[in-house]
Amino acid sequence: MMSGPARHAHTAALGGPAVPPRLGIDRILHPRSVAVFGASEDAGKFGGRIMHFLIRHRFDGDIYPINPNRASILERKAYASIADVPAAPDVAIVAVPVSRMRETVEGAAAAGVGCCVIITTGFAEADEAGLDLQAALVEVSARTGMRIVGPNCMGFIVPHHRMALCSSVVLNTDSLGDGSIGMISQSGALMVSEFDRARTAGIGLRYGVSVGNQSDLELCDFLEFMVDEPQTKAICLYIEGLLDGARFRRAAARCRQLGKPLIVLKTGRTAAGVVAAKSHTASLAGSWEVFEAICRDEGIVIARDPDDMMRTAHVLASFNGRRPGHRVGVLSSSGGGASIASDRVTEIGLELAPLTEATFDALGTMLLAPQARNPVDLGGRKVPADVEIAGTATATLFADPTVDIGVAFLMSMPFYQKRCLLIADAVRDCGKPVLIVCTPGAAADPARQALRERGFVVYEDFEQALRVLALVAEHDRMRQQPRTVPVRPADLPPPDKAGTLPGGAMGERAVKQLLAAYGVPVARETIVRTPEACADAAAAIGFPVVLKAVSPDIVHKSDAGAVRVGLADAAAVVEAARQMLATIAERQPGARVDGFSVQEQVRGEAEVIVGIRGDAQFGPVVMLGLGGIAVEILGDVALVPAPVAAADVGAMIARLRTAPLFHGARGRPPLDTDAISQAVERISWLAADFGARLVDLEVNPLIVKAAGAGVVAVDGRATLA
Amino acid sequence: MMSGPARHAHTAALGGPAVPPRLGIDRILHPRSVAVFGASEDAGKFGGRIMHFLIRHRFDGDIYPINPNRASILERKAYASIADVPAAPDVAIVAVPVSRMRETVEGAAAAGVGCCVIITTGFAEADEAGLDLQAALVEVSARTGMRIVGPNCMGFIVPHHRMALCSSVVLNTDSLGDGSIGMISQSGALMVSEFDRARTAGIGLRYGVSVGNQSDLELCDFLEFMVDEPQTKAICLYIEGLLDGARFRRAAARCRQLGKPLIVLKTGRTAAGVVAAKSHTASLAGSWEVFEAICRDEGIVIARDPDDMMRTAHVLASFNGRRPGHRVGVLSSSGGGASIASDRVTEIGLELAPLTEATFDALGTMLLAPQARNPVDLGGRKVPADVEIAGTATATLFADPTVDIGVAFLMSMPFYQKRCLLIADAVRDCGKPVLIVCTPGAAADPARQALRERGFVVYEDFEQALRVLALVAEHDRMRQQPRTVPVRPADLPPPDKAGTLPGGAMGERAVKQLLAAYGVPVARETIVRTPEACADAAAAIGFPVVLKAVSPDIVHKSDAGAVRVGLADAAAVVEAARQMLATIAERQPGARVDGFSVQEQVRGEAEVIVGIRGDAQFGPVVMLGLGGIAVEILGDVALVPAPVAAADVGAMIARLRTAPLFHGARGRPPLDTDAISQAVERISWLAADFGARLVDLEVNPLIVKAAGAGVVAVDGRATLA
Repeated sequence: MMSGPARHAHTAALGGPAVPPRLGIDRILHPRSVAVFGASEDAGKFGGRIMHFLIRHRFDGDIYPINPNRASILERKAYASIADVPAAPDVAIVAVPVSRMRETVEGAAAAGVGCCVIITTGFAEADEAGLDLQAALVEVSARTGMRIVGPNCMGFIVPHHRMALCSSVVLNTDSLGDGSIGMISQSGALMVSEFDRARTAGIGLRYGVSVGNQSDLELCDFLEFMVDEPQTKAICLYIEGLLDGARFRRAAARCRQLGKPLIVLKTGRTAAGVVAAKSHTASLAGSWEVFEAICRDEGIVIARDPDDMMRTAHVLASFNGRRPGHRVGVLSSSGGGASIASDRVTEIGLELAPLTEATFDALGTMLLAPQARNPVDLGGRKVPADVEIAGTATATLFADPTVDIGVAFLMSMPFYQKRCLLIADAVRDCGKPVLIVCTPGAAADPARQALRERGFVVYEDFEQALRVLALVAEHDRMRQQPRTVPVRPADLPPPDKAGTLPGGAMGERAVKQLLAAYGVPVARETIVRTPEACADAAAAIGFPVVLKAVSPDIVHKSDAGAVRVGLADAAAVVEAARQMLATIAERQPGARVDGFSVQEQVRGEAEVIVGIRGDAQFGPVVMLGLGGIAVEILGDVALVPAPVAAADVGAMIARLRTAPLFHGARGRPPLDTDAISQAVERISWLAADFGARLVDLEVNPLIVKAAGAGVVAVDGRATLA
Repeated sequence: MMSGPARHAHTAALGGPAVPPRLGIDRILHPRSVAVFGASEDAGKFGGRIMHFLIRHRFDGDIYPINPNRASILERKAYASIADVPAAPDVAIVAVPVSRMRETVEGAAAAGVGCCVIITTGFAEADEAGLDLQAALVEVSARTGMRIVGPNCMGFIVPHHRMALCSSVVLNTDSLGDGSIGMISQSGALMVSEFDRARTAGIGLRYGVSVGNQSDLELCDFLEFMVDEPQTKAICLYIEGLLDGARFRRAAARCRQLGKPLIVLKTGRTAAGVVAAKSHTASLAGSWEVFEAICRDEGIVIARDPDDMMRTAHVLASFNGRRPGHRVGVLSSSGGGASIASDRVTEIGLELAPLTEATFDALGTMLLAPQARNPVDLGGRKVPADVEIAGTATATLFADPTVDIGVAFLMSMPFYQKRCLLIADAVRDCGKPVLIVCTPGAAADPARQALRERGFVVYEDFEQALRVLALVAEHDRMRQQPRTVPVRPADLPPPDKAGTLPGGAMGERAVKQLLAAYGVPVARETIVRTPEACADAAAAIGFPVVLKAVSPDIVHKSDAGAVRVGLADAAAVVEAARQMLATIAERQPGARVDGFSVQEQVRGEAEVIVGIRGDAQFGPVVMLGLGGIAVEILGDVALVPAPVAAADVGAMIARLRTAPLFHGARGRPPLDTDAISQAVERISWLAADFGARLVDLEVNPLIVKAAGAGVVAVDGRATLA
């Protein structure tokens, strides 16, 4: 069952708990006592599995089974009601039917329970009645301070606390594993599937938390706890929809500050995904680009596959806050593997480590010249019978100072297991994270088993290993280029200017005045009433000029014939103004024309578009792209949350496919990227100042001259709320 | 060890075998007798493993161990020399050291051996001495008709013939499996690794052939055999470098004609891949785009990962020549899985099946409304306890007539195995290929085992299943849109025109004359000697005109100041011509100016570039793209081998990122794509006629007018060999 949006039924809607919370997150994740509603001995039932798993994994706090029909359950004294429990339990897990939920939760609150974990489905994610019922539970929470996890969740698993407050069959195992990764998921099935999959692969989790409908405690409550807990070395999030974007950003910023990797899989990236996730309305469908911009800005790694997320976290956690680096060393046991890897490494955007001369020399003593490179091809041994060389060549490659991270593709080779272990020993000794991929089938199983016993996570295919390395490298690149803290330019107008402007659509002139107030150069213009008055105005500005009609009724000036460019003398301007009146009268009858704007005709080397989009979740976002087909047809834009420092605009430009044009491709002069950066910074502060009042803004075009010659905004529009 | 290029040491270089081959491919792959040079009982040696594997897998032909020091090996009579063998063996497998190779191969030929499979390395892939030795072996082959596979190969595996002529440890298994997929690989390690991996996954191979250095028998020899063998239902190729592009294309065309899927993994797609594969020179590095164009043209599926290749072949083979369709039905056991799948299905380019109303209605009886769609989310059961619904919902979804292929993402759920098997039964009964993905770890192992016993290939992660489905859909789309057979327009000049032209660079005028001869509209022009003569020429053409200097010395006309546009009257033309002489004298002193070309100034809606590139492997290829940043900065071009039918040019345009501009985006009129198609067709015939003589040609720009108004070539250049 999907986790619903629950937007109208969580505590935040009530302004937070009305009384102090009974327990903090730490104690909720590490309870000293647990009550199990609907407890049973029957592993076919929720309450039965939960009891079995608590006991099997040796939870050493108190367990209170609640069941009115039994005196004891699995040799534990059972209680007819929560009211009968001798001491208020820290946490109660509740899987009773919807029809009995309200009385159960009221009873738990009355009995002093610290937190209810509600597994049952049929609340906000289901229908209106469920939404109402969920709101009633939230009201209990707000009134009493008893926290709620869920409903529609699968609880949580905390291996180091020997506790699985969860009914999933994946807990039917001897060991919960343990590790340093925290996972928080809006999907319960995903949480338990990945918990099991990671554990099986040798990746231990410190926490697996399913938050379900987030009616009270939400993803960020657990995220904030894990961010500040030193034993959690990396955090994975599965998100369908955030409740509080600003809170999420603060937590992510703190993660970055601590060097703690945060890896996110968020659905709703495509229209189909939005429909499926059901936690977004159609109007939020476009916000994936904004979320992506936020992640880039805060250094959050985006995964698109749950396994990728977990495995990337595992690799990054091993760095314990250090930067991993991003240059890759590749080892292959065969030429075919080296060829495949070389192409894929490049195609997936990874950078092959260049290696030092010393490493080439050392490899050259073992391998034929063409194979003594990166990727290393162990098949090119000078002495084909030399099995031991697998270890020495591996050690040599990965000891190279230009290699940060690595991958070893171990295809079929004679003495497979022996060579794999030689390679694995060298990998372990090099102290760098090197992913080991065993590509044969059953023939490699003994080697896989031996590698796992030595603590290696064995990868099965080229693609997954390369995707994980690409995400590790991305994390590193984001840490290499941290965001500059934006500093408000001293000459900006007071930030409360937004309050003085009326709502609604803003025309070209108003937008340009606003831009000018924020220090963005705009084309000079003079407003006149009559065609005849255009002549003097144009002469004062200097020919050629641009002429535009001033009208509150015309939205698309070009379509209405309300723009003329390249007017070279006084006669041409007056004649153009007269014609314009006639054309407008014909194309848009009834449109009022209040006068004419006579503007300097700005010449430049290129046109860019700078836009602002107000995002409901994350506030204003700045968009930059090259005018013309690049933005309109190819969608080649870079986004960043506002405000942005001028120093970071270069990185936006670098992400554009048209970036070469900014730097002087095709024999053209380089553009004035400094002036672009200044303009974008100032527009971003404008957006930050206006906040939610600014629905959107578009400066189109911002004409860009050659380096050193500046930029000029010549047209724009905006909408104020 | 990588497979070398062996370009100077294969029989093709000798013009094919000088005497008829002793055996055909069929008999080589299904020999009745096998001699094993260097036979041994020691499984630590090549010849020992080969003997063990022949016997273990119950090869029922004659086995002749060759070993001068033993009377018998593994209870088979051993022979001191090949000359002692009582009957000439069909195939001999040779792993003797390089130093003894020549005498061994001579001896085999003298003894009447039909084909030598040479495992030993150290030939063309190693050094000059190896190249010479390989050439000597090829000479024996050419002289005697004895075929050679290798050297530097790993032999072949033919399960249905109970024969593994191969020393890899992956054969150390009870069963070779069997199936309908033929695999031919230039990498031995890749062949055996994938053979083992596929077999372990439940995918049987009919042939696994490693061709090594391709000194005599090459990839296409085996490909041609498998194409025409009905029992081979799909063919996989691992290619580092082809020896004969035309032969490869013919085989691929026959595959398409028979509906037999051909899936190729080719390395050398990137600069790093080219270096690693070692089988291409740097000058061929750019040819990946050409290979990709050939594959699209011939309906060959391109895989980038070896597992993807094998699994795609497995799915496609099940269709036995029918088209698979490409609309996808997705089943998930949870909302998280449905969300993830929805995004990835879209991102990877797959099309979700729309489903019929009847299916929605039927699903709606079992599932809540939001989950009764595609993807189906089984978590949304109306009766949560209803386990059986897994089967009925699966059957309903995949029975839908709009669903062609499918995938089931089975994340953790209660009664996991029971539900998996209900789903699997429904999948089997629906008769469509549905990939089953089990995402938990060890908790899903019993279900995996049960599924494998029922003959299912179990996928492990979302990504691989989706990649395979994407390749299946691509195969279908290529079959849906077969290439139109190009028919030579009747009005073209005789195809031998190329012979009458001198070699070297061709300037604008010569290229335009050639284009005009092929029926491509070109801008009208008049050549005159003096500035003064330009006036009358311009008046005759009609103002405004374009003026260009005619000079054998000027390559970049714009840079030299040798182009002026928009000349509006006679005085302007004459003045421009005079200025041009001065500018050229200043910018390019000594450049001869023979006169001036006065041209009509063509106005259009867009400029496109049409180019020809002569590819050493595949002949001329046509390139099409939009002029300006699209081609030069974004590399947005479509390629197709020449000649191409006008009817297929629309598909080229559709592949461009700028395609919307051709169809009238941004309020602009649609372009004359019919005229573009005609021009591209004619230019492609020009290229086909000129063949290898045409090194390159570029028509830039071809000015395109609005639909119905035509195209005009206004500039071009070319190089003839």
